Amino acid sequence: MNFMESAIDIAKTVQGEIAVGAVVVKNGEIIASSANKKEQDKDVTSHAEILALRMAAKKLDSWRLDDCDLYVTLEPCPMCAWAIINSRIKNVYFGSFDTNYGALGSKIDLRQIANSKLKVYGGIMEKECDKILEECFKELR
Amino acid sequence: MNFMESAIDIAKTVQGEIAVGAVVVKNGEIIASSANKKEQDKDVTSHAEILALRMAAKKLDSWRLDDCDLYVTLEPCPMCAWAIINSRIKNVYFGSFDTNYGALGSKIDLRQIANSKLKVYGGIMEKECDKILEECFKELR
Repeated sequence: MNFMESAIDIAKTVQGEIAVGAVVVKNGEIIASSANKKEQDKDVTSHAEILALRMAAKKLDSWRLDDCDLYVTLEPCPMCAWAIINSRIKNVYFGSFDTNYGALGSKIDLRQIANSKLKVYGGIMEKECDKILEECFKELR
Repeated sequence: MNFMESAIDIAKTVQGEIAVGAVVVKNGEIIASSANKKEQDKDVTSHAEILALRMAAKKLDSWRLDDCDLYVTLEPCPMCAWAIINSRIKNVYFGSFDTNYGALGSKIDLRQIANSKLKVYGGIMEKECDKILEECFKELR
């Protein structure tokens, strides 16, 4: 199964805010997923990654998301990157690069501060992810 | 009223995890507050600042915490600093400096990436805040 496609499908459902989708995978199965819901929830912390991490932690009854991977359509911001690092996620796969605020390599790399072993793979299905954001920004304008 | 004292009182209630307290103030009144509850909630995002921001947003029915200040006993980590910056908090007052992970000046300053006008005042009641952390770390060992 292509987990980035699942994240993309979630991103495509977003209305009225920045279209991002994220899924958490363990042992080849999606155990949690979310869209960005900042506007819907009226909560700055309701980014797709944060909501997916929280859902995964609930499912595993632990904040330690050992042996879990995260797939997200946009490079995580510093808030999400730090949460991901601290949750012990093993691998992050993201779609679009965020040269303004991307905190897993593009603008800064918070792994350096955390001395983290998190592995990061950027640009997965990049064109599809970029297209979702472009269409979203058109609508938001 | 001394709002840092309120944050300290909250930090002192913490058991079994890093003792941090935070309050959000608007128009001279505390509108939200929280302790760090990462272990209690089994949620990496349950830092005192994040929980206080979310509570304030609920109270104001908006993620935009205009004209609000945040008082917290320890310098915010990158996750919390980014959430604070994005929530439009006006002033942050923190107690202890965090030279390992502090993201409002000590280790990094995320305001530079966000091009943020957030004002930050560190070292408020620093000795009291340092003492709480020292005692907490003794207990956690």
